[in-house]
Amino acid sequence: MYVSVSRLRIDASKAPQLVDAFRQRAGLVDAFEGFLRLEVWQSDREVGEILMVSHWESRECFKRYMRSAEHRVSHDRIDTALLDAITLERLEHVQSYEVVGT
Amino acid sequence: MYVSVSRLRIDASKAPQLVDAFRQRAGLVDAFEGFLRLEVWQSDREVGEILMVSHWESRECFKRYMRSAEHRVSHDRIDTALLDAITLERLEHVQSYEVVGT
Repeated sequence: MYVSVSRLRIDASKAPQLVDAFRQRAGLVDAFEGFLRLEVWQSDREVGEILMVSHWESRECFKRYMRSAEHRVSHDRIDTALLDAITLERLEHVQSYEVVGT
Repeated sequence: MYVSVSRLRIDASKAPQLVDAFRQRAGLVDAFEGFLRLEVWQSDREVGEILMVSHWESRECFKRYMRSAEHRVSHDRIDTALLDAITLERLEHVQSYEVVGT
């Protein structure tokens, strides 16, 4: 199993809007081959720190999705003002892991 | 739902031993009230970066476990040499989150 973590940071006042956007997501990824689940985590210390955590059967499935039309459509429907408000902290804060034990 | 993340760092040569230790864990936590699941994540870029990710029904359940005899027993059975080899990078790298969307 493979996990991708994107760490987003947004002004605390806009955090509820970002959480809502995830709750109303298009869900196009759900039917994608190898997709297992997506969770949205909000820090209990800093509400503006939000992690998008997706589980995949393998790294290959994840990479295939990132290059897909479904991913582009999902991203493009996000409100532009909200997108502008998000700072993807740094590229290295998109991290990925093999799940090696449960 | 509540998530606790402990980021451990160990010399790459000892990473397989740490992963094995998790696979052979006592499992005392599994029956604890409010425990949902534990995953062990290994970075695909740095094999010595290992995250212990546990899911809980609530923050209260997690805190109760951290103060429990079960937690102490689980921790105490870890090989001392292995424990010494682990550097818990910093205290703030034990992070916790509310799961606000799926």
